[in-house]
Amino acid sequence: MSLVVAIGPSSFAEKDPTPLRLLEDAGIRIKPNPFGRRLTEPEIIAHLAGVDGLIAGLEPLNRTVLESAHPRLKALARVGIGVANVDFDAAADFGVTVSSTPDGPVDAVAEMTLTALLTLARQLFPTNAALHRGEWVKSIGLGLRGATVLLIGYGRIGRRTGELLQAFGAQVLVCDPAVREDALPEGIRAVTLREGLGQADAISLHASGEDCILAAPEFKQMKPGTLLLNGARGGLVEESALLEALDSGIVAGTWFDAFWEEPYHGILTDYEQALLTPHVGTYTTQCRLQMESEAVKNLMRDLGLQET
Amino acid sequence: MSLVVAIGPSSFAEKDPTPLRLLEDAGIRIKPNPFGRRLTEPEIIAHLAGVDGLIAGLEPLNRTVLESAHPRLKALARVGIGVANVDFDAAADFGVTVSSTPDGPVDAVAEMTLTALLTLARQLFPTNAALHRGEWVKSIGLGLRGATVLLIGYGRIGRRTGELLQAFGAQVLVCDPAVREDALPEGIRAVTLREGLGQADAISLHASGEDCILAAPEFKQMKPGTLLLNGARGGLVEESALLEALDSGIVAGTWFDAFWEEPYHGILTDYEQALLTPHVGTYTTQCRLQMESEAVKNLMRDLGLQET
Repeated sequence: MSLVVAIGPSSFAEKDPTPLRLLEDAGIRIKPNPFGRRLTEPEIIAHLAGVDGLIAGLEPLNRTVLESAHPRLKALARVGIGVANVDFDAAADFGVTVSSTPDGPVDAVAEMTLTALLTLARQLFPTNAALHRGEWVKSIGLGLRGATVLLIGYGRIGRRTGELLQAFGAQVLVCDPAVREDALPEGIRAVTLREGLGQADAISLHASGEDCILAAPEFKQMKPGTLLLNGARGGLVEESALLEALDSGIVAGTWFDAFWEEPYHGILTDYEQALLTPHVGTYTTQCRLQMESEAVKNLMRDLGLQET
Repeated sequence: MSLVVAIGPSSFAEKDPTPLRLLEDAGIRIKPNPFGRRLTEPEIIAHLAGVDGLIAGLEPLNRTVLESAHPRLKALARVGIGVANVDFDAAADFGVTVSSTPDGPVDAVAEMTLTALLTLARQLFPTNAALHRGEWVKSIGLGLRGATVLLIGYGRIGRRTGELLQAFGAQVLVCDPAVREDALPEGIRAVTLREGLGQADAISLHASGEDCILAAPEFKQMKPGTLLLNGARGGLVEESALLEALDSGIVAGTWFDAFWEEPYHGILTDYEQALLTPHVGTYTTQCRLQMESEAVKNLMRDLGLQET
């Protein structure tokens, strides 16, 4: 009897069939996502019937779901980093191995952070909109060479963002309690949050954890005209304090890709100086392919198959 | 009698008074631009009366103008690269030394090129506009890691653009008849125009000269969905062929910062997939300051003063 693998994410192999081929070439039978959207609890329970492994998205993988799939389900491989949708205790109890793809999103999110920073620094949106209206209005922006950028959080994505910033000649500061000064690359300096906020032309959030890092007192320590980038998590910033800082000009421009609730329809959408994207930091062809291929390889390993 | 220097560019020292101070500290008397805009021929003739040196912008510096300023005018220092507004034969005849600042714009223009490429690759404009309208629509963009980018022209700005692209992990191809294969940095490959056009995900123009490089036959050699970046000169591209390529999808997105005539009010402004900026490639605080300081130092040297 051949192994059966169910697919969770509706976008899996949408742009490039390579990851699906890897499974098929190993003789695995594939159960595609039948709804073309994220599955609900009853739907994923039905989807996991008679299945050995799951390529997982963000569908609920709680105790009820995992118990219903027991004893056949042996492995689930998340396409992406976050595994907050998985009950790890239940997975252990029912003998399900869980994997994720933490390296996949690094380039895509770091590139998106630079995209947003450059766009805000060069005032690309208002300038382009004006020219499309027939108005030829020049304004002077901020270059990255010599600009000071504070990274709050210095994990995989923070490090890659720092590398790219250094390639542009920016001065990079890092605030991360887990990072030792002597572990930083040459030219990157560790600072306290207070020091960093007072010096930065731009601040980029790459922290994990659930705490709010930037609230009213922190915005007061920033220089007027600061750019604030958030591709990490909405909750790292207090929304009302941000709005006040935008109104007062302390924050001249901001990018949010992650919000307090999603889909986001809040008051930031009224601010022209807010660049807003719908949690697409990882949405590049290369990143999707890399994460999907990595998840397939993880799943095959955890189902006891040779990697091809 | 102290030396007198006239200022041409209306924006000179607008954001940072340092370059003006350099002149003042040398005991030079300054004649500011009296109109706050580019001077016409009669205006620059009047402006140059009794002047030893000119900090030059794009005002006409033809034979009539230089003759009228003779014999007192000894030097003119252009803030920027282009000196098409200067009659060099007349300058030689009237003993006027001409200088420019070719290194100043390099970072600013290369950064702007990356800004435009990333913005188009990640579909930032339509995505941001949708979210501001309340629509949460995800789409998958192009990452730079592993993407193929063709640089047409490999002078100062092309080289710096190539360096930045390599930092992102892009595959860089160069088409420039003046460049020898073995003079290229590791990982960058010289190609013919035909080879390059057929392989590139994005094409960036950095060529000098007056010829049109991309016309209908060249667009036919591109891959569908190509991104085209032009921060160099409008005339490098045939406008009608570009419009056809946008209509057919051969070109998925394009950036123009330099146009066939300026200010530009042409048909490209009707295309949403065209990112348009009003010739502001060099408009960063850092670049303006660097070019202005360099021009002041050039002028003081050519007037026989010590650099401070």
